[in-house]
Amino acid sequence: MKKIILTGDRPTGKLHVGHYVGSLKRRVELQNSGEFDEIYIMIADAQALTDNFDNPEKVRQNIIEVALDYLSVGLDPAKSTLFIQSMVPQLTELSFYYMNLVTVARVQRNPTVKSEIQMRGFGGSIPVGFFCYPISQAADITAFKATLVPVGEDQLPMLEQTKEIVRSFNRIYNCEALVEPDIMLPDNDICRRLPGTDGKAKMSKSLGNCIYLSDDEKTVQQKIMNMYTDPTHIKVSDPGHLEGNTVFTYLDAFSKEEDFVKYLPEYKNLDELKEHYTRGGLGDVKIKRFLNSIMQAELEPIRARRKEYEKDIAAVYDILRADSDRARQVAEATLQDVKDAMKINYFADEELIRAQAAKYQG
Amino acid sequence: MKKIILTGDRPTGKLHVGHYVGSLKRRVELQNSGEFDEIYIMIADAQALTDNFDNPEKVRQNIIEVALDYLSVGLDPAKSTLFIQSMVPQLTELSFYYMNLVTVARVQRNPTVKSEIQMRGFGGSIPVGFFCYPISQAADITAFKATLVPVGEDQLPMLEQTKEIVRSFNRIYNCEALVEPDIMLPDNDICRRLPGTDGKAKMSKSLGNCIYLSDDEKTVQQKIMNMYTDPTHIKVSDPGHLEGNTVFTYLDAFSKEEDFVKYLPEYKNLDELKEHYTRGGLGDVKIKRFLNSIMQAELEPIRARRKEYEKDIAAVYDILRADSDRARQVAEATLQDVKDAMKINYFADEELIRAQAAKYQG
Repeated sequence: MKKIILTGDRPTGKLHVGHYVGSLKRRVELQNSGEFDEIYIMIADAQALTDNFDNPEKVRQNIIEVALDYLSVGLDPAKSTLFIQSMVPQLTELSFYYMNLVTVARVQRNPTVKSEIQMRGFGGSIPVGFFCYPISQAADITAFKATLVPVGEDQLPMLEQTKEIVRSFNRIYNCEALVEPDIMLPDNDICRRLPGTDGKAKMSKSLGNCIYLSDDEKTVQQKIMNMYTDPTHIKVSDPGHLEGNTVFTYLDAFSKEEDFVKYLPEYKNLDELKEHYTRGGLGDVKIKRFLNSIMQAELEPIRARRKEYEKDIAAVYDILRADSDRARQVAEATLQDVKDAMKINYFADEELIRAQAAKYQG
Repeated sequence: MKKIILTGDRPTGKLHVGHYVGSLKRRVELQNSGEFDEIYIMIADAQALTDNFDNPEKVRQNIIEVALDYLSVGLDPAKSTLFIQSMVPQLTELSFYYMNLVTVARVQRNPTVKSEIQMRGFGGSIPVGFFCYPISQAADITAFKATLVPVGEDQLPMLEQTKEIVRSFNRIYNCEALVEPDIMLPDNDICRRLPGTDGKAKMSKSLGNCIYLSDDEKTVQQKIMNMYTDPTHIKVSDPGHLEGNTVFTYLDAFSKEEDFVKYLPEYKNLDELKEHYTRGGLGDVKIKRFLNSIMQAELEPIRARRKEYEKDIAAVYDILRADSDRARQVAEATLQDVKDAMKINYFADEELIRAQAAKYQG
């Protein structure tokens, strides 16, 4: 069986370093591993519209940003299909038929749906489109017969819903049209949810606490130098705390042993640095500069690639158009399998027409 | 503004005389009135699958039956577009976007949804697809920019939902892409819900109490002669009751004054017949024979046309295919209007690409 990956992002803003360590970096590694037959990366505009339906301009303007971020981190249209969700209408048709296989009560029990409703403050006024997200996601995943979906642990209940739909469909229609996907969890705990530079658990544009992949060198440096550390660590000699200390959380996510050799040779590794910090006598500025060196080195090639792609925006749209065409073809093939299984391809079904004709002429 | 009709039926069985007096007869009159620019008659297979998803064969086998019934009663592909819902995938795409404009709570308040859930015994296990029926119906209606939807009074809340979606869409996206439809209620109260031949309020295949348009002469006669009348009317001389008397309900729906001249000249009209019946002295057999004469006269040309169409089932599928193609084109044009209004036609939007390019080169 082919090894196929489906993943993606909602185009509601530029991607930041949280996206990078949480998913993009791994995605590029998987792409370049040569272990996968097909990789689909979806810019989920239709999904983003379910809770931004009154602001399609926001979604529209951010598609190119996400595409530029994708290309900048090294996602390669020669190896991965980078497509726009709304350009694959087959996904809505699959959703429509899958909606028959899931009860309202089942969606209401979905923990991810529950917590998203709470997070977005929908209360009783949740739009049906947003409510049906787990079903729409099943359409996205199964349309490409994805075998592996790299997502965070919080998405486990969503993937479980996809598996249920696949099993129901194949059982009810006595077929193997749909493929059950596996989840691929992040291999590094710390990368799952990088906090904002202000120490808040959630990075958000409105809080102004994100370091974007597209931020220039000076902006990144400023954000790092202003990062939240330990409010009780007032004098250098004071013992510092690691718990909730954003600089150390970022070092956990970004630093490697070779970075110490390169930028901070007086320490062998992060454990030694942490030990000194907690003991007291190590100032925040020093570790922030160290983090800055590491992050600038990681972000510099990404920025350079972005600059290149920014020179020809039309060419980026051409990539998205070509890849969306390709995605549409794949989804159309799956949709045909689904309709064949449900036997709703009447006009193509010569046997049906023959049998019914015989019934009336007999 | 064009006058456009959208209506249709679920292909879950052959159509019966209840469908005929309740909607089909009127539909043919409207078609032949020349007052409408476009008429779309939808065989709602996708809708039927929302509560028959585990039995697509039933839906598949009944499409041709409904099509034959349509053609038999005089619906004319030269004047009306007779199409199959699932062959117009644009409808699922419209549904998908409309789902953003309706809250879960709003659907739950819909009285038609409430009563259908009760009628079908779904309880807590209502499938999402069935739950979303009001939204899917809005897609069906608006896709063809229908101005008039001839349905029963019980469908008023559904049409209200469509109107709400139209108003929300046009307001949010500041456009006139969608047209608000009007409901066209049956002009004859009695025709809204013809009872079964056993006197039960609901005609249903499983109760065996329907007279089908495709029943042969003898079958129709048998069903009429066995019709439920008045169990207290034992001897001819007994006074009879009209309340719940199926034969009289059918006479209300089918008989005209000229039928008395032709088949029962001893009475001037239905009022005289009813008067005699309630007074006593008029036997059931006599009125049943009268009803039979009337109904056979009405059904005979329908049966004759059906026989003709049954000779070439493939040709009927050709009609459905051609009309579904036409419906698809119309729905596609509306979908483009909708996407233009939502500005999700990125690749076609040269201004967007130019503006974004300028931003990065500026």
